[in-house]
Amino acid sequence: MSQNWDRFQEFFIRHDELDLSLDLSRMGIDGGFIDTMSDRVQSAFNEMDALESGAIANADEGRMVGHYWLRNAKIAPDADLQSSITEKITSVENYAAQIRDSGRYRKLLVIGIGGSALGPQLVADALVSPTNPIDVYFLDNTDPGGIDRTLAAIGDDLDKTLAVVISKSGGTKETRNSMLEAQDAFRKAGLDFAAHAIAVTGPGSQLDQLAVAEGWSQRFEMEDWVGGRTSVMSVVGLVPLAILGVDIRAFLDGAAVMDAHTRQHDTRGNLAMMLALAWHEATNGRGEKDMVVLPYSDHLLLFSKYLQQLVMESLGKELDRDGQVVNQGIAVYGNKGSTDQHAYVQQLRDGVNNFFATFIEVRDTRHGGESIEVDPDTLTSDYLQGFLRGTREALSGNERASMTLSVPEVDARQLGALIGLFERAVGFYASLVNINAYHQPGVEAGKKAAGEFLDLLQRVRGHLLANGEEHRAADVGAALNLDPESVYHALTHLAATRSDFRRVPAATPSEETFIAR
Amino acid sequence: MSQNWDRFQEFFIRHDELDLSLDLSRMGIDGGFIDTMSDRVQSAFNEMDALESGAIANADEGRMVGHYWLRNAKIAPDADLQSSITEKITSVENYAAQIRDSGRYRKLLVIGIGGSALGPQLVADALVSPTNPIDVYFLDNTDPGGIDRTLAAIGDDLDKTLAVVISKSGGTKETRNSMLEAQDAFRKAGLDFAAHAIAVTGPGSQLDQLAVAEGWSQRFEMEDWVGGRTSVMSVVGLVPLAILGVDIRAFLDGAAVMDAHTRQHDTRGNLAMMLALAWHEATNGRGEKDMVVLPYSDHLLLFSKYLQQLVMESLGKELDRDGQVVNQGIAVYGNKGSTDQHAYVQQLRDGVNNFFATFIEVRDTRHGGESIEVDPDTLTSDYLQGFLRGTREALSGNERASMTLSVPEVDARQLGALIGLFERAVGFYASLVNINAYHQPGVEAGKKAAGEFLDLLQRVRGHLLANGEEHRAADVGAALNLDPESVYHALTHLAATRSDFRRVPAATPSEETFIAR
Repeated sequence: MSQNWDRFQEFFIRHDELDLSLDLSRMGIDGGFIDTMSDRVQSAFNEMDALESGAIANADEGRMVGHYWLRNAKIAPDADLQSSITEKITSVENYAAQIRDSGRYRKLLVIGIGGSALGPQLVADALVSPTNPIDVYFLDNTDPGGIDRTLAAIGDDLDKTLAVVISKSGGTKETRNSMLEAQDAFRKAGLDFAAHAIAVTGPGSQLDQLAVAEGWSQRFEMEDWVGGRTSVMSVVGLVPLAILGVDIRAFLDGAAVMDAHTRQHDTRGNLAMMLALAWHEATNGRGEKDMVVLPYSDHLLLFSKYLQQLVMESLGKELDRDGQVVNQGIAVYGNKGSTDQHAYVQQLRDGVNNFFATFIEVRDTRHGGESIEVDPDTLTSDYLQGFLRGTREALSGNERASMTLSVPEVDARQLGALIGLFERAVGFYASLVNINAYHQPGVEAGKKAAGEFLDLLQRVRGHLLANGEEHRAADVGAALNLDPESVYHALTHLAATRSDFRRVPAATPSEETFIAR
Repeated sequence: MSQNWDRFQEFFIRHDELDLSLDLSRMGIDGGFIDTMSDRVQSAFNEMDALESGAIANADEGRMVGHYWLRNAKIAPDADLQSSITEKITSVENYAAQIRDSGRYRKLLVIGIGGSALGPQLVADALVSPTNPIDVYFLDNTDPGGIDRTLAAIGDDLDKTLAVVISKSGGTKETRNSMLEAQDAFRKAGLDFAAHAIAVTGPGSQLDQLAVAEGWSQRFEMEDWVGGRTSVMSVVGLVPLAILGVDIRAFLDGAAVMDAHTRQHDTRGNLAMMLALAWHEATNGRGEKDMVVLPYSDHLLLFSKYLQQLVMESLGKELDRDGQVVNQGIAVYGNKGSTDQHAYVQQLRDGVNNFFATFIEVRDTRHGGESIEVDPDTLTSDYLQGFLRGTREALSGNERASMTLSVPEVDARQLGALIGLFERAVGFYASLVNINAYHQPGVEAGKKAAGEFLDLLQRVRGHLLANGEEHRAADVGAALNLDPESVYHALTHLAATRSDFRRVPAATPSEETFIAR
């Protein structure tokens, strides 16, 4: 027991001002491991300094990586950038205040996907009360069923709805499609979409051009040097969050305070570097274990999903920076505690030992509110804490590693600090394993293949419309010189989504026929 | 390409009546592997037959495992069980119709956790429209912050709120605490909680006794032979879902149709057995790969979470049925496509190859509704399909395994069928690797350790209240013969949640002092 206490004291790191701490005592990390990593740690510190100074940290895309500047404009590499950052925050605040004061809007419809949705979703879910005067809705996919449901939830309130369309490139198809569907709904309701719409996008993008051409009510410019998964403190996050009444200054400040701390070249005292080192030790620097994220707070339910994006998209890389095949990454999943104890802690404790747990403790989830006693002298929150501590003990009792991150409460400042902590840890980790954390070359293959399928779909559709009889997939494939399996998927999709296409069932896919009626 | 088409035809399995299919062609499974497994497959079929006939399939708990009877009472092992099952469904329907017809309730508050929440959450999210006359809310934790938020969302409508408290054992602390907090809110609103409350629990449980003593408006009995993670078709799911207007007959029927299919001892044609075999091949029968679940439908967002519970709690076991240490399990995670392509498909395609993907295609998510064209002759759903097909190609182009499950739409019947399919596959897989899928011994260790922490918390609290001066964790630990680290966590928790406790900050945990004021 006193061994636990000694180890706890050695690997308990606290940020006093934020009252935020990280306990790595139940991870495998130790002084010997830290020593062996010291050269790489110094390189990682130096690379982060260079990145913050405006180096082209994302070499593949020839871009600076500037999300740290967003919360401390003074460190941005030149005066123009500095003033554009501070002015933008003020303009977002002014715009949001005007929207809120007008009382004209009751609903905010955020249209975006990936980095342009998950940040705002996380922060809104964590911080916006159900009694907020403006409710928020998201279209974050290209699923017509999901779009219909969200628009049904808004119902007759489209006239009191403000739509924020977010896409850095301005060409993201899911976002474009959702925007067109929303536009159609406004039109059917006899409303002018443009008057209800704001664009958040790169200057001159397709979306930007559209917003100009249609005279949308407002545009905010997204910076080239902010990546999607680290964009929540850019206009991507700030615009919707400020409209919802989130204290964006506190949010930025939390991150700035954390950044100042994690900027120090003090390995043992640096929360982010120690986090990165603990990941490295646990996964052998090769993703050999999954990161299970268990925030003990309903308000942080989406934080595990947010980290899933931040960590996996940043670290899941085929090549290292020298071009060697490394197939890096750390798989991340989780929802919330103690709920997940009733879902899969069974496996964590007893099953395949392929993970390390990240407990997140929120010391006062009720923000100081009065509590009833559920047992004599016992509060609901005592059980929450008890289950966290109990699960941690049960895991380490069976040689399962875990760390515990503690914050005093979930507010804008702490959430900013948490995001800042993980952004920096991901950056450090990428340096430790010699990969580029700031690009995503692997998503191109899927986009390209999707484009090919859409082309094939049109060719198959055209072929059936031009040729009246019944068709089998293999015949269409042969006629058009296309992969018969892809043709089959195209044909079944056409039959399922078009009233003028029909599938004639048969025992096997090769025998099935399809007709354009 | 024609190789793909041949393999597709060999490993494409369809249920014609349901129009549901499973494509295993991009998994590693082949005829040779299936042959090597044939003895174990036959045993698995036989074990499932025995389970369905009422054998004590959960040997550790001495229980029958009867969730398959819930959707086909005729196969239940005796006449009393058969009539109790059918009568209960009728009584739930009648009760729900009466509640809905009364128009008295606008909100349904479901209080439960794990198996007593996730099933109703999944089905409600998938099937209940935002325009439904009754909205649903969940308390599925013991987090006071989350409870406050949910009660704030209900707001002034407590008088129009019906609370369903669900706990099989009737002693689940999270559920008990949430119930007490809800009860307190009703009391403060001048309302009689008992008149608004229904209990769903085992007969004679603590919760049942309380409901009797307080005169709750209704009670439904939960069966001893239904486990939490397979309880969605028992009163646990049926009561809230029928109140919400879900077609529970269609839901049960979908599962019954799937069960009838997966009951056949025809390896190659049995969807569930082929699914189990594909898992086995992919994970080496030892959980060596994670199952990433990607439903391309917003309505199935929670299905990955549902499978996480079903699969991990069932398969994550330390010992096999012969008592050998095997540390089994398959880690499951995922959200929805194509959204997740913007989050972690980067890692899936390029990063650590420690997973297989499960795509779920919903062929018509709009249920036949009219669609706009987002490009010439192109629908929003074409992109959804294109991204699914594109990601599948991009993964197999890089040697990442995937399977694709296709359903025509998300309705009660298909959802019942999907749940039935995975329940059976999990049961088969457990037989193949010789583990008990129906118990959860590993959760006891965490509960026990939680209880110990709660006791320690009270002792530490008492010690400080009885002794006025400042205390350090180590001193309190020594005085009470308790682990100083646990004492430290108890002290920080007391200081964070009680106005009469205070922490005096210091540089390190060992130097910090705590005072009861």
